[in-house]
Amino acid sequence: MSSTWKNRISVSIFGQSHGAAIGVTLDGVPAGEKICMDKLNAFLKRRAPGRFPWATPRKEEDVPEILSGIVDGVTCGAPITAIIRNTNTRSGDYANTQTVPRPGHADFTAHVKYGGNADLRGGGHFSGRLTGALCIAGGICLQILERRGIFIGAHIESIGEIYDASFHETLVNEDGIKALCEKDFPAFDANAAQKMIAEIEKVKQDGDSIGGTIECAAVGLPAGLGSPMFDGMENRISQLVFAIPAVKGIEFGEGFGFAFARGSEVNDSFTVKDGKVQTETNNHGGILGGITSGMPLIFRAVIKPTPSISRKQKSVDLNTLQPATLEVKGRHDPCIVPRAVPCFEAAAAIAIYDAILAGGVPC
Amino acid sequence: MSSTWKNRISVSIFGQSHGAAIGVTLDGVPAGEKICMDKLNAFLKRRAPGRFPWATPRKEEDVPEILSGIVDGVTCGAPITAIIRNTNTRSGDYANTQTVPRPGHADFTAHVKYGGNADLRGGGHFSGRLTGALCIAGGICLQILERRGIFIGAHIESIGEIYDASFHETLVNEDGIKALCEKDFPAFDANAAQKMIAEIEKVKQDGDSIGGTIECAAVGLPAGLGSPMFDGMENRISQLVFAIPAVKGIEFGEGFGFAFARGSEVNDSFTVKDGKVQTETNNHGGILGGITSGMPLIFRAVIKPTPSISRKQKSVDLNTLQPATLEVKGRHDPCIVPRAVPCFEAAAAIAIYDAILAGGVPC
Amino acid sequence: MSSTWKNRISVSIFGQSHGAAIGVTLDGVPAGEKICMDKLNAFLKRRAPGRFPWATPRKEEDVPEILSGIVDGVTCGAPITAIIRNTNTRSGDYANTQTVPRPGHADFTAHVKYGGNADLRGGGHFSGRLTGALCIAGGICLQILERRGIFIGAHIESIGEIYDASFHETLVNEDGIKALCEKDFPAFDANAAQKMIAEIEKVKQDGDSIGGTIECAAVGLPAGLGSPMFDGMENRISQLVFAIPAVKGIEFGEGFGFAFARGSEVNDSFTVKDGKVQTETNNHGGILGGITSGMPLIFRAVIKPTPSISRKQKSVDLNTLQPATLEVKGRHDPCIVPRAVPCFEAAAAIAIYDAILAGGVPC
Amino acid sequence: MSSTWKNRISVSIFGQSHGAAIGVTLDGVPAGEKICMDKLNAFLKRRAPGRFPWATPRKEEDVPEILSGIVDGVTCGAPITAIIRNTNTRSGDYANTQTVPRPGHADFTAHVKYGGNADLRGGGHFSGRLTGALCIAGGICLQILERRGIFIGAHIESIGEIYDASFHETLVNEDGIKALCEKDFPAFDANAAQKMIAEIEKVKQDGDSIGGTIECAAVGLPAGLGSPMFDGMENRISQLVFAIPAVKGIEFGEGFGFAFARGSEVNDSFTVKDGKVQTETNNHGGILGGITSGMPLIFRAVIKPTPSISRKQKSVDLNTLQPATLEVKGRHDPCIVPRAVPCFEAAAAIAIYDAILAGGVPC
Repeated sequence: MSSTWKNRISVSIFGQSHGAAIGVTLDGVPAGEKICMDKLNAFLKRRAPGRFPWATPRKEEDVPEILSGIVDGVTCGAPITAIIRNTNTRSGDYANTQTVPRPGHADFTAHVKYGGNADLRGGGHFSGRLTGALCIAGGICLQILERRGIFIGAHIESIGEIYDASFHETLVNEDGIKALCEKDFPAFDANAAQKMIAEIEKVKQDGDSIGGTIECAAVGLPAGLGSPMFDGMENRISQLVFAIPAVKGIEFGEGFGFAFARGSEVNDSFTVKDGKVQTETNNHGGILGGITSGMPLIFRAVIKPTPSISRKQKSVDLNTLQPATLEVKGRHDPCIVPRAVPCFEAAAAIAIYDAILAGGVPC
Repeated sequence: MSSTWKNRISVSIFGQSHGAAIGVTLDGVPAGEKICMDKLNAFLKRRAPGRFPWATPRKEEDVPEILSGIVDGVTCGAPITAIIRNTNTRSGDYANTQTVPRPGHADFTAHVKYGGNADLRGGGHFSGRLTGALCIAGGICLQILERRGIFIGAHIESIGEIYDASFHETLVNEDGIKALCEKDFPAFDANAAQKMIAEIEKVKQDGDSIGGTIECAAVGLPAGLGSPMFDGMENRISQLVFAIPAVKGIEFGEGFGFAFARGSEVNDSFTVKDGKVQTETNNHGGILGGITSGMPLIFRAVIKPTPSISRKQKSVDLNTLQPATLEVKGRHDPCIVPRAVPCFEAAAAIAIYDAILAGGVPC
Repeated sequence: MSSTWKNRISVSIFGQSHGAAIGVTLDGVPAGEKICMDKLNAFLKRRAPGRFPWATPRKEEDVPEILSGIVDGVTCGAPITAIIRNTNTRSGDYANTQTVPRPGHADFTAHVKYGGNADLRGGGHFSGRLTGALCIAGGICLQILERRGIFIGAHIESIGEIYDASFHETLVNEDGIKALCEKDFPAFDANAAQKMIAEIEKVKQDGDSIGGTIECAAVGLPAGLGSPMFDGMENRISQLVFAIPAVKGIEFGEGFGFAFARGSEVNDSFTVKDGKVQTETNNHGGILGGITSGMPLIFRAVIKPTPSISRKQKSVDLNTLQPATLEVKGRHDPCIVPRAVPCFEAAAAIAIYDAILAGGVPC
Repeated sequence: MSSTWKNRISVSIFGQSHGAAIGVTLDGVPAGEKICMDKLNAFLKRRAPGRFPWATPRKEEDVPEILSGIVDGVTCGAPITAIIRNTNTRSGDYANTQTVPRPGHADFTAHVKYGGNADLRGGGHFSGRLTGALCIAGGICLQILERRGIFIGAHIESIGEIYDASFHETLVNEDGIKALCEKDFPAFDANAAQKMIAEIEKVKQDGDSIGGTIECAAVGLPAGLGSPMFDGMENRISQLVFAIPAVKGIEFGEGFGFAFARGSEVNDSFTVKDGKVQTETNNHGGILGGITSGMPLIFRAVIKPTPSISRKQKSVDLNTLQPATLEVKGRHDPCIVPRAVPCFEAAAAIAIYDAILAGGVPC
């Protein structure tokens, strides 16, 4: 596997869902950055299982233990490693996925690639649980960015056909993002939130699952982060975001809406506000030529419905190559969109902090 | 900048639109691969300027010169470098973009990042012309993949509101892809193609530009390529595809359509055909957990309308910070979607060939 | 810092000498490799502190805990992480190195680079203790290589003026290396070993320290591993070996001896033995043009005397910039050469296994 | 192959000795750096063939053509690519090395790795000619470093048994290094220089070749560049230096001399001079714990005798596996040490400039 992202900082994620622990090493953070553990734990809680009535009842504390890199609450320059022990595992639930792969899940491809030795218990290294490690790394970066006036927040843009207001329609600034991050159910519109919750509960009763979209914004960015070609902001954010299981698409700014647009409609005019060059609109989503423009960076991603559903599904027994019917027991979210929200903030924070460390822009 | 992608193979792109030459070094290709220059040139011709009546009339031969790595038509194991000389440059056309940035273009962010020394003539290193270098690298990979039974093709899925048939509705196999790649205007549906051409010509007369989407498929892939986390097929394809200027979104398989779906609808059931495990449907687009499933790999991306339009646009003079009106002369495509098609095949070919070289899968 | 080495496999080392734990993540090892923990622990014991009468009396069990990547003794394809808890730490001993840097040690440069937040207790991340993490990663690679008939062993070539026999003079093969690795004091010549031990004890009584050289060999290698330029065997081994603190030089084959030689004397003639092309002599140390020749790979490195000595030394108080006298208490090896021996085997194993995974050579 | 070094900057080297051209792409240099072509050409001339009476008579102009990245003598932020055309090639001379490998040369390992398609004409990509590309990249970095007060120079420390004075015994400062770089034959001691020249001529008459050592120093470095572990100054310099063909060993500061030393003798005491912490001696060669101390960075490397000699040598015909006698005609240096001197300056300049771009130290 290649669970190590190496750029200016390195993020090395390890662990399997039902192994001893999951964790992450974040290497390359300079010494002297204060890291508040309470704040980090609060951030991690936002993706922790068991928060919503419908969500997987696996309740773990999921409090990370810092093994290195932080002394008395301050980074010392050495690699930061944190682990979360796996305690509440019940592998029996997943027993038959070893030979009968779940439709839509990585069971089959893991079997092809890693053979009989793949650790598929609870999804193994493919499990959404591993995003806990991503969130530790991202949560540390978020704190560092906030001290530089950069704030990142995400919300549920849609569940099925139900849409929240978008960042386009809302005031995207430090206060707005802070307020958003404090919500139990991260949506702007309380009404939409209620409908989304109702929809998820309905889907759960059907023994089914449902997808949705998440929208993420970063404000307070300086212009000049990123690069054209392979290390632009879109490239690096995508590379990190697709590490979140179930993400199948990403778009920046107006995104797929550009397909229907004419240049005269969507080219963002330049203007000067407060002595600074800005754009009047933000269809470009804060990135031009792979480089930040100083406008809010906005992207959206789609999360597919959880493949693990309790309905019967058609599959194949990989040993016998005979048809098999699958009924997944285990503990499953009917919708992982709400829990995935902080993962997007984490991925964006890593990508942005790394771009800052790449230098060339005072920040 | 960071125009070097390094994985198992390295792709290092260089050049500015109005500099001496553009080119690429492709490092890591094993010795002994036959490369047919005629075939490579035919591939490059598909993205060359001046092919369509409406397209930029800058007609260059754009025949690459191989400087290294290929001897008597066969790779020798050393890095492959090819260059294309820039001959037909008229920098005067772009003169005032140095101080008055084009809305929607990288002029502004390039100015912020690279300052007064940025080479903005014709877009400099940000120019779509640089995709010629990407296509050289990708065109070489395509030939190597074809010998292994892997075929990659892309088509215009939409221009504005006009849609071609999609890979979903069509037979996606070697023959279908070969036929597609031979078309002058790469769309399945001749009727849609005509409408698209008419639309582009209309947009041109309006002094405007228009966006669209491109769909790309790879068939003949073995199951098992890729990895979970940061080096999965989605991650690596995205990192390469966002190097193509004007791409603002990408989706795999059902993509953003997953947002509206239930798991029971889109989980692809496993079955056995010809003694091989396959899925009955291909909503997952050939990738599960970052790893190829053996089904056709399918992705779509959106291309925003060309920012350079001849209509007057509002901008700012970066020297005086005063409002300025911009009228871009130069030679511009009203729609770069058709020319971008082979760039997607190139990006996919690099990502896939690299995943093959990563090993673990007989191919 | 940059404690992540990323090539085909990644090695990410973390921890500080007096922090909670040290550890390593080894990413990229394919599934299905058996790892014997007893064998790994036996390997780690060879570098553990407290083995020799003169060595640092810090006695820790130093048994690694595997957190991920190995299930029932077999790799599952996911990143392998192991940690060793730090238990027996006495930071008081090092208290004044925070402001008065030890001559010859990284205290000063760590202070410059990481400032007041550097964790200098016991050398922090710069401590030789971190080589325990390198040895975990290397010990795993060694087991994998042995199954492929590749054996790596190192010995103390010299302590001060006392020399062991060298690999040149001895039979370098699987049996010889196995015998070497089982020795308590890894030297071929028992007589030299005794003299070395006596010398180290004498140095200890003097409150001083002494340097030496280590010679490492790998046998059973296929020809064809490596590459010219930046990723050759010499380049990659060097990059890993200089991660071992106190190493100040490395040479391959005849090494610095080539300076005095004529080509006619040291060019290794080719011959055919057992149907295989080999060289009659091995001055090239098994590497030609960065690529293995199939002959034993041999390199030597020098270890400087431990900077921490109990004699009084001249230094500077970094706070006051006034002269200061330093008397290091703590627990120090008068000679770390014996304990460093397995670290070289570990570094070589990582470099070689990575080159094998790079492919192109059946192994 | 892996001829791409990617860190903060990327260096991608391409070309074969008898192909169309050699060249390099240097990616990651910020915009706004003045590059004087005359100065670069003067630097390249120092390694050009045909400068010494005994040296290979292949006289090429070897003036690089800049293809990208530099506009009007100033870097524009885009990747810098330069090529040197190969004009004066006579492949016939090397004809039989294709099947009868030269002892001590990469012919054999290239054959194993790249098979019948390896381009072995004149050594192909393994040729010392490729160091011209390294020198272009390094020469550009040298100019940038000099503007920051950092000067790098190397000299021939020894040819066979004849020794020059060393940097230890000489004033190592900006003026000393400038003077050294202007010498035709880069040695401090004119007397030693004469003896070296005589020795090389004698070796040539014998149809033989001879090795030597090169010593390189960098002055004006800030303290704090580098890192412990894998990206320390020793690690990165080694990785680059071993890309220079024929280098078989490297040592820093006192290097292999540390083997015979006691800590009390070689630990460099700290002191304060001109308000700055310095060391009284410089046995550590300017690097402690992988990080620069601010003292001159000093390293030495050994160059083996050129494998191509006109004397008869024993080899094997790789097609028939029968013994063969080899008499290399071609044009060969009896000693490549003098021409290799600027290559070391180039490698050091790349490593140091990259460490500066890694940030954390004002420079």
